[in-house]
Amino acid sequence: MTDTRFDVLGIGNAIVDVISRTTDDFLVREGLVKGSMRLIDAEEAERLYEHMGPTKEVSGGSAGNTIAALAGLGGKAAYFGKVSDDHLGKAFAHDIRAVGVHFETAPLMRIAPDHAPTARSMILVTPDGERTMNTFLGACTHLTPADIDVETVAASKIVYLEGYLWDPPAAKEAFREASRIAHAHDRRVALTLSDSFCVERWRPEFLELMRGGFVDVVFANQAEVKALYETADIDAGVAALRADVGLAAVTLSEEGSLVASRDGVVRVAAAPAAAVVDTTGAGDLYAAGFLYGLTHGFDHATCAELGGLLAAEIIGHIGARSQSDLADLVRQAGFPV
Amino acid sequence: MTDTRFDVLGIGNAIVDVISRTTDDFLVREGLVKGSMRLIDAEEAERLYEHMGPTKEVSGGSAGNTIAALAGLGGKAAYFGKVSDDHLGKAFAHDIRAVGVHFETAPLMRIAPDHAPTARSMILVTPDGERTMNTFLGACTHLTPADIDVETVAASKIVYLEGYLWDPPAAKEAFREASRIAHAHDRRVALTLSDSFCVERWRPEFLELMRGGFVDVVFANQAEVKALYETADIDAGVAALRADVGLAAVTLSEEGSLVASRDGVVRVAAAPAAAVVDTTGAGDLYAAGFLYGLTHGFDHATCAELGGLLAAEIIGHIGARSQSDLADLVRQAGFPV
Repeated sequence: MTDTRFDVLGIGNAIVDVISRTTDDFLVREGLVKGSMRLIDAEEAERLYEHMGPTKEVSGGSAGNTIAALAGLGGKAAYFGKVSDDHLGKAFAHDIRAVGVHFETAPLMRIAPDHAPTARSMILVTPDGERTMNTFLGACTHLTPADIDVETVAASKIVYLEGYLWDPPAAKEAFREASRIAHAHDRRVALTLSDSFCVERWRPEFLELMRGGFVDVVFANQAEVKALYETADIDAGVAALRADVGLAAVTLSEEGSLVASRDGVVRVAAAPAAAVVDTTGAGDLYAAGFLYGLTHGFDHATCAELGGLLAAEIIGHIGARSQSDLADLVRQAGFPV
Repeated sequence: MTDTRFDVLGIGNAIVDVISRTTDDFLVREGLVKGSMRLIDAEEAERLYEHMGPTKEVSGGSAGNTIAALAGLGGKAAYFGKVSDDHLGKAFAHDIRAVGVHFETAPLMRIAPDHAPTARSMILVTPDGERTMNTFLGACTHLTPADIDVETVAASKIVYLEGYLWDPPAAKEAFREASRIAHAHDRRVALTLSDSFCVERWRPEFLELMRGGFVDVVFANQAEVKALYETADIDAGVAALRADVGLAAVTLSEEGSLVASRDGVVRVAAAPAAAVVDTTGAGDLYAAGFLYGLTHGFDHATCAELGGLLAAEIIGHIGARSQSDLADLVRQAGFPV
C-alpha cells in the first residue's frame, strides 16, 4: 500500500448553484416536481433563468459539497470534476481550492471545437425549505477516463462517487476506471445514489456496481433505497442493501439515519436543527461527516452522528457550502476532530 | 410636470459582490482598514481573490441594493449603471430586472477596444459582522452622460445618486447631467455620501453639489457627516448639514437615525435586530425604506422607521440583496405598503 495522501477523493459533476427563492405556484406553473433534480439543456436553462427571481451563485455539485465540507473538518481531500475556463469554472475551482482541496482536473478550454460552459444548477427554494433542481450539465459531459489521475486515486483511502455521474455518458467509464484503480490499490469505493429519479434512470447499473464489487459503501436516503429495490417497505430495502454491499448509510430525514453492515443495523437519532431554510446539500454534508469519521477510525454510530450534525448545520442557511467553521462546530459538539 | 412613471431612479456603480467570511488576522495581514471600501485595480483583484476563502456571488452596488429593495417593497423603480456583456454583467441585469426594476443601460461590449469586465467588490466579512470592501470598478468607469436617458430621469419623482459615482471620472458629468435634467422637470435629487473615505476623497465637490443646489436630500451615517465637516461633534455636523441641504437622513447605528430639515431634527430609535451576520447594505436598505416613504407621502419619522426596519433585516444574513418578501415583512410591522 502506498501512502494515503488523501482521506477521500470525490468524483462528481462540477456545478455552480444558481439559487433563488420561489413560491409553490411557480413550481406548479413550470410543471416541476418539488424536491427532484431534472436535467435540462442550454435553451431551457436560459428560459428558466429569465423567469426566475434574483439569484445567488455558490459553488455546488453533490460530491463537491461533500469534499469541501470534509476539508472544512480538517480532512485531506481531493476532487475530480470538469469545469470550463469561464467565469463559473474559475469560481468553482477557486472555492474548492480555497478550502484546501487538491483539484487539478484540466478545465475544458473555450477554444475547444465542442466547447460547453461550466455546469449550473438552477435551484428553486420554496418557503418550506425544499429545493427543486434544474441542472444543465455543460462541461461535465466532457469528464472521461483521461481525467482519472491514477496517483491521486491510489493515494486516497476512499474514492467517493456520485450517482449523478451516471448521467453524462463519458463519465461512466471514468467512474468504472476510478473504481478499478482504487481496488487495485486496496482502497475502498463509496457511492451515493444521489436522487430517486437518478436511481430510476440507472437502477440495473447501480445494482450491478454493487453486486459486481465496484462499490463497497453506499449512501442513500429512504426514497432512493425504495426506488432501488422497487419496494415501499424501507426495512425490506435495507435488508436487500445489506445483501448487496458491505456498508450502507441510509438517511431518514427527521428520524436520523441508520448504518447497515454485515454485523447488523445501527440507528442514530437526528441532530436538533434550527429553522429549515434550504435543504440543499443535506445529504452531501451527511456523507462528509460520515466519511470523515470512517477515515479517522470512528465507530459507525459516531460516523452517522457526525454526518447528522453537519446536515443540520447546512439546512439552516441558503446554499450547500458552509461559510461557518465546521471543525469548530464539530469540536463544540464534542467530536474529536 | 410629466407623468411620474417611477418613484425612484437610482444611478450608481453596477457591481457584483464576491463575499467571503474571513478573520481579523486576514485583514491585518492584508493591511486592510475594517469597515472601509477601497478601490483596487484588476491585478490586485486577482491577487486578493486568490488569497480569499470560498465565496458567494450576489448582485450589489450601493444604489443597486437600494433600488432592488425599493422595488421589493412595491415601489416603481429604475436604475442606470454600467455592466459588461460578461457573466457577471448578465447576472447583475437579471437580478435587478427580476425584482421589476427598469434597467436598460447599454452594456459595454466585449469587442470594445477599451473593454473592461463587470465591476466586482470583494467583500470580507469578519466574525463581528463588519464588512471590508475591495472594489474593482471595471466597466463602471465607462458610464457617461450618454447613458443618462432623459425620459427616465424626467419620469422619476426622485433621482438617487451614490457618492461612489464620484470615483470613476466620466461618471461625474453623468451625475451632474442627471441632476440638471431632474431639476428642469421639478424632480428632487438625493445623494448618499456612501463612505467616510469617499467623503475624504471628494469633500469640496460634495459640499459644492449641496451648496450649489444640485442635490436636495442627503443620506449619510455619522462618520460621513463628521468627515464632511471635519468635526468630531455630530451635532455640529448635523447643524451644518441643515444649513447646506433641505433634507438629510443620518443613520446612527444602534442609536437609530435622525432626519434633519429646515423644520428641525426628528430622532427615531433603531429597529430591533437579530444577530448581526453581515452589515453589508445596511445603509442602502435604510435609504430604500426612507425613499419609499418619501415617495408615498409618509412623514419623516415614519420614513426613518421604515428605513431602520429594512436595515435590521439585511444585517441578519449574508449579502445586501434580500431574498425575503420585503413588502410582507413591512406590512407585518404595520406600515401601509
